[in-house]
Amino acid sequence: MTPLTLYYTPGTCALAVRIALEEAGVPYQLERVDFASGQQRTPEYLAVNPKGRVPALITPHGTLTETPALLAYVAHSAPQSRLTPDDAYGFARLQEFHSYLASTVHVAHAHRPRASRWADEPEAQAAMQRKVPHNMTECFQFIEHHYLGDGPWVMGAQYTVGDGYLFTIGTWLHSDGVDIAQFPKVVAHAQRMLQRPAVQRALA
Amino acid sequence: MTPLTLYYTPGTCALAVRIALEEAGVPYQLERVDFASGQQRTPEYLAVNPKGRVPALITPHGTLTETPALLAYVAHSAPQSRLTPDDAYGFARLQEFHSYLASTVHVAHAHRPRASRWADEPEAQAAMQRKVPHNMTECFQFIEHHYLGDGPWVMGAQYTVGDGYLFTIGTWLHSDGVDIAQFPKVVAHAQRMLQRPAVQRALA
Repeated sequence: MTPLTLYYTPGTCALAVRIALEEAGVPYQLERVDFASGQQRTPEYLAVNPKGRVPALITPHGTLTETPALLAYVAHSAPQSRLTPDDAYGFARLQEFHSYLASTVHVAHAHRPRASRWADEPEAQAAMQRKVPHNMTECFQFIEHHYLGDGPWVMGAQYTVGDGYLFTIGTWLHSDGVDIAQFPKVVAHAQRMLQRPAVQRALA
Repeated sequence: MTPLTLYYTPGTCALAVRIALEEAGVPYQLERVDFASGQQRTPEYLAVNPKGRVPALITPHGTLTETPALLAYVAHSAPQSRLTPDDAYGFARLQEFHSYLASTVHVAHAHRPRASRWADEPEAQAAMQRKVPHNMTECFQFIEHHYLGDGPWVMGAQYTVGDGYLFTIGTWLHSDGVDIAQFPKVVAHAQRMLQRPAVQRALA
């Protein structure tokens, strides 16, 4: 099997895909994209991913972007690892969780480091940044009460690619000014994640 | 088969799911949620969808939210309708498109009607609203050049649930202050959509 290539930047949601690849046990190589020097805006990287973002995954069939798509691809590429529910409802329920993380939670967070996407005026950007702790708290309260049930994992007894996605976004809470300790199920989930060898390899 | 129940509001991305249900030919019933009277915030509706949004889909197994998840569920529930690619790469590529629409394009649009989600100050909300035409133009330029190839559909020869999702968000451009005519492939796609009986039924 041709190794997959993951374009990633530390501290981004590319970590969720790296965890999935480690859990799946599929061969892959890493290409680091240096956001500090603006590498994501170079012609070379835009030829890989015209969105100028990470993650991007080079597969034998073509390039994929968007974290939920990469997680679905990795899970389907290694069915023996059982990283997603098999049935239509369970699979859709996992996609629901991914979509909530991508389009609500990640977006709530992005208004701090990426406020300039949505307004040009510095005062407006500052106003957005001020609201980030409130919005991220609301999102994680929702996750605590509506997505994390008896566990141990997001989907219940089955560990899935969604667990690495939640873990990854949870690592942003501190810099967003939110104390993770107010979400005991999220904390316990993160502690379980840190005990998994695949997660330890992805963080190394 | 127990009919599915789709909670929807006209003018929202619930239309994408209604189109998918019509294309799939699965039995469903509609429950209209009246945003004008704030019905989405009533205890009755929050018991259906604690996010207080549409769409929500009641299935025999439980309730699903988030448009990309509903589209995946409907496509998988009617495999004979071939509303998604079968192979892991093609399926992931469609999820990539859904995720881009949900977490970038829909979010770009939402800064006009829902600016209060991301800042409290009216001046900041006005600043966000001013940038919506620019951001929506950029998104649809990207779709025009990177997702709509030779067509006739988003995924090429195969019509998928993603086509209804693009069509739905395209109907928001006018109110966002963006002239759709500058995207000829998007216009041609919308015209093809309007010729489909399932789309006509969903719009009726």
